[in-house]
Amino acid sequence: MAVELKDLTKSEENYSQWYNDLVMKAGLAENSAVRGCMVIKPYGYAIWEKMQAELDRMFKETGHQNAYFPLFIPKSFFSKEAKHVEGFAKECAVVTHYRLMNDPDGKGVVVDPSARLEEELIVRPTSETIIWNTYKNWINSYRDLPILCNQWANVVRWEMRTRLFLRTAEFLWQEGHTAHETREEAIEEATKMINVYKKFAEEWMCLPVIVGHKSPNERFAGAEDTLTIEALMQDGKALQSGTSHFLGQNFAKAFDVKYANREGKLEYVWATSWGVSTRLMGALIMAHSDNNGLVLPPRLAPQQVVIVPIYKGEEQLAATRVRMEELAAEMRAKGIRVKIDDRDNVRAGFKFAEYELKGVPVRLALGQRDLENGTIELARRDTLTKETVAQEGLADRVEALLEEIQQNIFRKALDYRNSMITKVDTWEEFNEVLNTKGGFISAHWDGTPETEQAIKDATKATIRCIPLDAVEEEGTCIFSGKPSKCRVLFARSY
Amino acid sequence: MAVELKDLTKSEENYSQWYNDLVMKAGLAENSAVRGCMVIKPYGYAIWEKMQAELDRMFKETGHQNAYFPLFIPKSFFSKEAKHVEGFAKECAVVTHYRLMNDPDGKGVVVDPSARLEEELIVRPTSETIIWNTYKNWINSYRDLPILCNQWANVVRWEMRTRLFLRTAEFLWQEGHTAHETREEAIEEATKMINVYKKFAEEWMCLPVIVGHKSPNERFAGAEDTLTIEALMQDGKALQSGTSHFLGQNFAKAFDVKYANREGKLEYVWATSWGVSTRLMGALIMAHSDNNGLVLPPRLAPQQVVIVPIYKGEEQLAATRVRMEELAAEMRAKGIRVKIDDRDNVRAGFKFAEYELKGVPVRLALGQRDLENGTIELARRDTLTKETVAQEGLADRVEALLEEIQQNIFRKALDYRNSMITKVDTWEEFNEVLNTKGGFISAHWDGTPETEQAIKDATKATIRCIPLDAVEEEGTCIFSGKPSKCRVLFARSY
Repeated sequence: MAVELKDLTKSEENYSQWYNDLVMKAGLAENSAVRGCMVIKPYGYAIWEKMQAELDRMFKETGHQNAYFPLFIPKSFFSKEAKHVEGFAKECAVVTHYRLMNDPDGKGVVVDPSARLEEELIVRPTSETIIWNTYKNWINSYRDLPILCNQWANVVRWEMRTRLFLRTAEFLWQEGHTAHETREEAIEEATKMINVYKKFAEEWMCLPVIVGHKSPNERFAGAEDTLTIEALMQDGKALQSGTSHFLGQNFAKAFDVKYANREGKLEYVWATSWGVSTRLMGALIMAHSDNNGLVLPPRLAPQQVVIVPIYKGEEQLAATRVRMEELAAEMRAKGIRVKIDDRDNVRAGFKFAEYELKGVPVRLALGQRDLENGTIELARRDTLTKETVAQEGLADRVEALLEEIQQNIFRKALDYRNSMITKVDTWEEFNEVLNTKGGFISAHWDGTPETEQAIKDATKATIRCIPLDAVEEEGTCIFSGKPSKCRVLFARSY
Repeated sequence: MAVELKDLTKSEENYSQWYNDLVMKAGLAENSAVRGCMVIKPYGYAIWEKMQAELDRMFKETGHQNAYFPLFIPKSFFSKEAKHVEGFAKECAVVTHYRLMNDPDGKGVVVDPSARLEEELIVRPTSETIIWNTYKNWINSYRDLPILCNQWANVVRWEMRTRLFLRTAEFLWQEGHTAHETREEAIEEATKMINVYKKFAEEWMCLPVIVGHKSPNERFAGAEDTLTIEALMQDGKALQSGTSHFLGQNFAKAFDVKYANREGKLEYVWATSWGVSTRLMGALIMAHSDNNGLVLPPRLAPQQVVIVPIYKGEEQLAATRVRMEELAAEMRAKGIRVKIDDRDNVRAGFKFAEYELKGVPVRLALGQRDLENGTIELARRDTLTKETVAQEGLADRVEALLEEIQQNIFRKALDYRNSMITKVDTWEEFNEVLNTKGGFISAHWDGTPETEQAIKDATKATIRCIPLDAVEEEGTCIFSGKPSKCRVLFARSY
């Protein structure tokens, strides 16, 4: 599992290749022998685990419990909700048989034709149907509500064009599925959870996001409203990073889930669902990294600090080790994740490049003169600056610095994002900004799916969202010239 | 999700039905709409999460990292290791198509015949093949070794007769897959991990286990040696609770994984794999529970303490609440997981029964006289005893009590298990013990697969393991009368 330190493709030369190189060379993920399915390598998985841990904590803090539902969904379940089937039951993995047998011709194994399933099973692309079929048995009266469940799971959508983390046939995610007495309570839940995502994206991933409603064309199949967090990548393209759906009573009706209300009358239950996935890894990588490699926010970095010894010969190394261990112990006592890299088969310069590639926020180098002087060299990954500092008080300094780096990475991404929201009022301007600057374009839209589709066909830009904080403003649609009441955000996107 | 407090089937009347009732009524799991796949409900999942968290900590402490490999495995991969294909590629879920389409006859969706996969994909029953196919690219020289990966995942084995947690088509597990330079190092790893499982089973689940080698008949398909931890359930049947395999070079040969050794020569890599699953939930339930419900070891109990108020009217409840919150805060400060149940729509007696069913280790009841006297009623789930104690020092008392309960549950299970290991020296005795007492039978065996199979055919008992601590002892096989060098453990099992 040696890291390859060959030069990355430069992002300005080929952004897409730069991304792919980075994911592979930093040891985050790689393609597998199965088309569209990735292997998440230990370093990538360690970052995902940190994301999971914090999200899970936030879900529990907001009253949710984890549960687990089946991987397989009977084919007929998808037909029960009319829009859902259109959106999800098409490109999917279909299990038709449950047995292999030895090839009668003598080589390998073949599908046993006698072991055909009566009804095909679909590998879940999302779990609304199987979960609402289950909730039917859990809900009798308003006393059984709300149900606030989340599951961490793998899902499969048979994507034709895949990219590591961003779009893979199998991916890991969490999906929350909640059941409520009233429309208002369900809408409140959907809103609460999109704000949990926003908080997580901004405070943990340093990823500024815009919260808004999806236009009807971009809504989740089966939802009455989809809330989204939209982030901007460094190439000016948007990335949908998490969604939270108000499902109305659609799935309750499809699976006949009613409850006796406080007046004893039977009513359909109200629903939400919400999810984020390993796609967040793609967002994290593309939002902050540079031509030297990853730039990881300290809160998500598997190692926050690495210490590299500069020495000649065993004796010097031994002396340096002692001091490195002492310094590491002081930092670890503050909860800082520290690695000491005392490998003696690679040069310090190789190690420096490796930790830059891997995005370790703080690198310390301890040389022989440092040992004499009580100093140490400290390098920041976010700014690529270095300075010599005192060993005394190092743990305090690093603790504060990690927080500063966290803030700095966010501020940089926020400044960039803010500089990439452009107001335009004409179709000409729209095209010009889209093709030269990119980013989010704030423009008037007449509110019809037809216009949205026409703009997409003409430019590949879609409505990323109608921001929650959009102000009412009279205007005319950039495409149709028809009247509009507010601006929406367009962008090309992943 | 109201808990049903109807009487459980008595375990002495129908052990199997008692188990099923318990799993359902305590809200741990239920069957789903998909044959053989279970829904793990929030309370069951909360226990599984506690297990996962500790196991994960133990794996990392022993140097392992998590990663994630694809759900699907190309069919041809199974044919590469001769024994493995026999063991695992038979009863499995086979994906043959990747698209559905609208039924031309107008109703629902059907499999699109044009979307047939060139090569069928198998939903992983275990991941040795796809992982060794991946490791091939990760390993060049001895410097890339060892690789110490674990994955938390779902797997599918198409079981015909399923039972919640014990045997389900889909289950959750972890699978460790390691790669080593030498035979010795791989054997050491396999041994280390079976001992991690033993420690976890005993110290966290209160489940005494016997560590031993599987006989060749019971070995993992593709392993040179399988180590197992075997536990005993209260009905006298054994349950294999975790296994760790020394795979030799079998998978390295099947997938052509070689490394340059310290002398620069190419050699095949040595391997281990090891796993425990949601089957542990079944072991936990069957080892300790009684006719009142679950008995949970405090270390795995989602709630360790519940406080129930005894009161009449709003005013008394309000006063009781204040004191309950104070007491809970003191306990929580010590890291104790405390729930206050102040629901006013069910009686205290109902709550008592509910928490007994759910196995909460300590129940506190705070009444009006207690408020005046500074006392509180404390009930232990493991012994079903109760006493009135002072509120002062309650947190310290409960902290110590939880530890005592943890020890007591283990000791009880250990005493029972030890009383259920019977030495026999004749075939007659063997049958008598098996049919009257059950449990483990320590007997001489001639070491041949034929005799093992004959004993199984005659009695349904199998060799659970050849204990690691078995002493050499001359004897004659209970079945064949041939000479034997040590005793092995037989039992009927789940």
